Amino acid sequence: MPRQAVVLRVPAAAPDDVSGIQAAFASGIDPAGVVAILGKTEGNGCVNDFTRAFAVSALHGLMDRLLPAGGADRISYVMSGGTEGGLSPHFLLLARQDSAAEMGEPALAVGGAQTADLPPEAIGRLAQVEMVAAGVRAAMRDAGITDPADVHFVQIKCPLLTAERVADAEARGAPTATRDTLKSMGLSRGASALGVAVALEEIGLAAITNESIGRDMALWSGRASTSGGVELMNHEIVVLGMSRDWTGPLAIDHAVMNDAIDIDPVRAALRRLGFAFDGQLGADQQDALVALLAKAEAGTTGRLRGRRHTMLDDSDISSTRHARAFVAGALAALVGHAEIFVSGGAEHQGPDGGGPVALIIDRDRLNGANQ
Amino acid sequence: MPRQAVVLRVPAAAPDDVSGIQAAFASGIDPAGVVAILGKTEGNGCVNDFTRAFAVSALHGLMDRLLPAGGADRISYVMSGGTEGGLSPHFLLLARQDSAAEMGEPALAVGGAQTADLPPEAIGRLAQVEMVAAGVRAAMRDAGITDPADVHFVQIKCPLLTAERVADAEARGAPTATRDTLKSMGLSRGASALGVAVALEEIGLAAITNESIGRDMALWSGRASTSGGVELMNHEIVVLGMSRDWTGPLAIDHAVMNDAIDIDPVRAALRRLGFAFDGQLGADQQDALVALLAKAEAGTTGRLRGRRHTMLDDSDISSTRHARAFVAGALAALVGHAEIFVSGGAEHQGPDGGGPVALIIDRDRLNGANQ
Amino acid sequence: MPRQAVVLRVPAAAPDDVSGIQAAFASGIDPAGVVAILGKTEGNGCVNDFTRAFAVSALHGLMDRLLPAGGADRISYVMSGGTEGGLSPHFLLLARQDSAAEMGEPALAVGGAQTADLPPEAIGRLAQVEMVAAGVRAAMRDAGITDPADVHFVQIKCPLLTAERVADAEARGAPTATRDTLKSMGLSRGASALGVAVALEEIGLAAITNESIGRDMALWSGRASTSGGVELMNHEIVVLGMSRDWTGPLAIDHAVMNDAIDIDPVRAALRRLGFAFDGQLGADQQDALVALLAKAEAGTTGRLRGRRHTMLDDSDISSTRHARAFVAGALAALVGHAEIFVSGGAEHQGPDGGGPVALIIDRDRLNGANQ
Amino acid sequence: MPRQAVVLRVPAAAPDDVSGIQAAFASGIDPAGVVAILGKTEGNGCVNDFTRAFAVSALHGLMDRLLPAGGADRISYVMSGGTEGGLSPHFLLLARQDSAAEMGEPALAVGGAQTADLPPEAIGRLAQVEMVAAGVRAAMRDAGITDPADVHFVQIKCPLLTAERVADAEARGAPTATRDTLKSMGLSRGASALGVAVALEEIGLAAITNESIGRDMALWSGRASTSGGVELMNHEIVVLGMSRDWTGPLAIDHAVMNDAIDIDPVRAALRRLGFAFDGQLGADQQDALVALLAKAEAGTTGRLRGRRHTMLDDSDISSTRHARAFVAGALAALVGHAEIFVSGGAEHQGPDGGGPVALIIDRDRLNGANQ
Repeated sequence: MPRQAVVLRVPAAAPDDVSGIQAAFASGIDPAGVVAILGKTEGNGCVNDFTRAFAVSALHGLMDRLLPAGGADRISYVMSGGTEGGLSPHFLLLARQDSAAEMGEPALAVGGAQTADLPPEAIGRLAQVEMVAAGVRAAMRDAGITDPADVHFVQIKCPLLTAERVADAEARGAPTATRDTLKSMGLSRGASALGVAVALEEIGLAAITNESIGRDMALWSGRASTSGGVELMNHEIVVLGMSRDWTGPLAIDHAVMNDAIDIDPVRAALRRLGFAFDGQLGADQQDALVALLAKAEAGTTGRLRGRRHTMLDDSDISSTRHARAFVAGALAALVGHAEIFVSGGAEHQGPDGGGPVALIIDRDRLNGANQ
Repeated sequence: MPRQAVVLRVPAAAPDDVSGIQAAFASGIDPAGVVAILGKTEGNGCVNDFTRAFAVSALHGLMDRLLPAGGADRISYVMSGGTEGGLSPHFLLLARQDSAAEMGEPALAVGGAQTADLPPEAIGRLAQVEMVAAGVRAAMRDAGITDPADVHFVQIKCPLLTAERVADAEARGAPTATRDTLKSMGLSRGASALGVAVALEEIGLAAITNESIGRDMALWSGRASTSGGVELMNHEIVVLGMSRDWTGPLAIDHAVMNDAIDIDPVRAALRRLGFAFDGQLGADQQDALVALLAKAEAGTTGRLRGRRHTMLDDSDISSTRHARAFVAGALAALVGHAEIFVSGGAEHQGPDGGGPVALIIDRDRLNGANQ
Repeated sequence: MPRQAVVLRVPAAAPDDVSGIQAAFASGIDPAGVVAILGKTEGNGCVNDFTRAFAVSALHGLMDRLLPAGGADRISYVMSGGTEGGLSPHFLLLARQDSAAEMGEPALAVGGAQTADLPPEAIGRLAQVEMVAAGVRAAMRDAGITDPADVHFVQIKCPLLTAERVADAEARGAPTATRDTLKSMGLSRGASALGVAVALEEIGLAAITNESIGRDMALWSGRASTSGGVELMNHEIVVLGMSRDWTGPLAIDHAVMNDAIDIDPVRAALRRLGFAFDGQLGADQQDALVALLAKAEAGTTGRLRGRRHTMLDDSDISSTRHARAFVAGALAALVGHAEIFVSGGAEHQGPDGGGPVALIIDRDRLNGANQ
Repeated sequence: MPRQAVVLRVPAAAPDDVSGIQAAFASGIDPAGVVAILGKTEGNGCVNDFTRAFAVSALHGLMDRLLPAGGADRISYVMSGGTEGGLSPHFLLLARQDSAAEMGEPALAVGGAQTADLPPEAIGRLAQVEMVAAGVRAAMRDAGITDPADVHFVQIKCPLLTAERVADAEARGAPTATRDTLKSMGLSRGASALGVAVALEEIGLAAITNESIGRDMALWSGRASTSGGVELMNHEIVVLGMSRDWTGPLAIDHAVMNDAIDIDPVRAALRRLGFAFDGQLGADQQDALVALLAKAEAGTTGRLRGRRHTMLDDSDISSTRHARAFVAGALAALVGHAEIFVSGGAEHQGPDGGGPVALIIDRDRLNGANQ
């Protein structure tokens, strides 16, 4: 019997507002089919962003009440902090269910996996790349996808260093890759993205060294999206792709932005998916775009198309916060609203200063909107 | 003899980097014709943003070396702090010169004026509205524009309160409209914008009361752009419009964004001005767009197209900084770069959450680009 | 049978780290006796500080597992966000238990109360003052204290406005006292403090008007400490005082700092309580000081002892964060560590720029330390 | 003829407020004797703090008007950004003049030096240590001090990296020690402090390696104070000590704080210098303390006396800003006001988490105050 992916986008009035998720279950979605819940929460998205853990606590509590013992632990909760600019806090519920429909066209496939805990001293190093690559392969197996080319997006939540974790590692004689806690987030995101690139055969493992992680920005995945969180020491991995073993109206495609305002590839992907529009998506079309996920970062050259930007020199606001607000504006002006999943810190995710974008659409709604 | 407006956009490597302005003079622009220098500087754009004063100090020093005694004081220096997201620090040199050309089509006209000092207790009150309206009329006279409909943009730099100014006023028995220094910036910007609306006959003076300033967001000008600065207690006013008494390749038009991502009116204005494009402006076309000036603000409803935003509840980053980064992304994705003049705090400047946009183009370059 | 107060200070490794509280129960404290749990959590202490709600969620969850149905709801959870400077996140567990000891000297008494929900439009207005005054009287009754002079500290958690609450109230035709969400925290703290002053007979209710709240800084309580939180709409009140009906080694006294560095009254209080020391408390003495609770704020004059400070003009860091870090330094240098409860925003709590300080000591330990 | 040091502390109403310095010259101090002007300015003290450059611009302009050509360039302008907590922006004018007095007791001696420009790739490396050590020796010669033990304080302003400087160096094939601009400030401050330690024979040069800079916190100077600034690429060095070749009422001593609240060594130094007091300095005594200069930093262990602090995990506020506010509170509570020179970032300046403190007093005024 074919499987069908379910993707629901629900607004959140606060980090712990799970009422929208509850309503989804009340309306018929089976909690037992949930693979992952992604969320944009309204913290700073940096080291001391506890909105992520708060959301996870609320979501886990909800799932624990709805599922048999241990069931809540098998779900990936991937919170990305930071709703700068007009970004609107929301959750994305990713689930799967059996379908009575016949199989036909390829449809959205969803798979998940979790790795073991990573010791603090391995963050941002080759051991993390390898651990993540194995995890992505496990998630592909869970999705029933065998060809890496069928994967369009891999979302990963990865660990970071805190002052205490640094001290712990040093006490064990194992110095961490950095003592700077904010910087550790970038290294962890970068190593995780390279793990995706290895699993998707975008880069060979041999091309990556400890030294290139966080430094050689020519190495990147066009389909990875990774976020760091203080609340975990392992990796939570969700793979999204297209498969003939799945059915239903949902489909996914992706694009790669070359810099923060390079929206024409996204526009092209929308048109490729069937959206006919000039300028901004119309209101009906907006409903057919179920989810947009993108990465944002400040280019390390200090320049955007040759002109100086100041994001990297601002000691009041982290460059990740600047970049999320800015890229959110670029994408929201294209798709007509800002309830989009723009995640900061795109180290090794897309070219320097750019990043991957994934688009999940509902083909049934799109047909209605285009008529 | 007709006059011709000159508008140059020059990047700045730091708030006090006047080397680009110097180069402009070296290339033949007459310092004596300078009416105003606008600048986007890289501070926080809020109360304690000293990059504005630092830039003014450097610019004034430069002009003082180039002009006869007192000449530097007759120029308006309108610095707008805040280059969030990818915004690129730059100056806009506005000058005028005599032209040997025959008059033909209407062309860009530039006029300036400065008001007297405003006492701190008048900030954000009706007295400020009236003072600014008179100042705008003086700047229109300076530009030779008689019909308010020919004005497309009015840029104003207005004063704000500091803790010391509040204390001074209170010591004189004259309480200020607010004690909150950041809030005073909004009140001053709002009252100044309403002064523009009165001068341009968008709103009648009788419709404005002390109570409506900063509160009744249905009152707005579609052509005002106002910024506050700690470095002045008066108003510096620059009027930009179209006039048959002026000549040259420059032209101006404006649009009003209804919210932070409402870029279709700007796209329409670009097309109206002669740009033929889909998606993003091409590189050649970018050269023909001499300057883009826009206002950005977080809508006071806490929502953007029905979805919650968090800009007004963020106590770490001022909502003006969020809004600049976000609107800059929306506009940069349209025009292809971020060396644009996005100024925060759009109280009474455009609808709530939106704002006016002005576009200055070079028709000669545009003809070349379109060919 | 006399009652005995229990006060435990436990460090927190994160906002939701309740392991220290659990350990206290494991060591013999009866969860059924808990009146309140106070906490310093590591958020920004301003509008969007979700560390407070996260801590409350974790603490409530713990108590709910330990107490009969409804028991967890009867406890006051008073989280104060902001551990700037060296402040160390921690909880203060306030409980009471029956004692077999004979009554003798007066000892620490603890009482609690909660008010009904306050509508958003009443925040910062006289109705809030009256509601809080009634709540303080209820908490005194709960503590068995009849003479207001025996009360040394009243800790209150009060509500604040968010953009959504402002919009809700306005939709009902009931404009709020301010639309500025950060400012609403100050008004709510101020009105709550004046409620304490009324209940403790420091100020007569007739002396307070809507206009004086947040403005007339000559009106203040020397024993109130109030914090705002987004997570509640009512008030949680804890009263601490001395009573002959209570027994045990704990005692409380208070001092009023006239400005942010006026620590000599605190030094005097410590000596009055029996600490013999020069300079800084010694390590043994530190153990005898069970808890120090203080309020911090930036003086509204913009000056500290005649010299300009910049806290009120800083648009990057809220003045409440500056003040907590600064006052924490002053007090930590006196008592020898920074696991102290310094709470920001001292509107109507102590003189302008100063604030009340409460000291809870263990007389048995002090006798040991002084020997 | 003996020399006499002059030290004046003047408040600043803004970064460019040189009116207090002008008044000092008007009252008889000879501008030709100025060695250095130190300043606490009200920026963030981090990478994009332009208040330092703005102050230097204003001070240099003033001195340029008062001195013969080139004279203004021989003065060291050492601005330290960041007046967190109650810190009050001010300048310290350090000058010397001939004295008709007979030599007697040792008195304050002042010397200055400037190094050549440092290439960006040498920042935070051994080459910087050696360059600074040579510069300190030059400044000692300028002060006429031969014994390193007679030096009590060395203030240095050192360069930092910006995104552009990193890119420049990399383009030349010379990678910088870090790409993180904020981190570069710490490395530069640390290498400069180690240069002082070498010159003062606190540490042998052989004990320092590239790897130990910024890492081995057991290496430190008890008399160095270094600040980074974006406005220079060389080092400006001022040495303060005691010498029998100098005369006048001024004297200097120093202390080392072991952590952020370790004020007892400072109290001891004050008593050693002749102040008789309990608790806080009295108003008369405050006048006799001409200047207090201290370093502040967040201890890298993440703990203060065993209790967790959150300064290093705060991505909204730089730990240097937290530490300045906190240490300022500790010291201001001792000396009775906050017009003190607390400078952030104490890498290799005093023990980890602590820092050196210098006290300049006027012995004539102290005699008056003690009577």
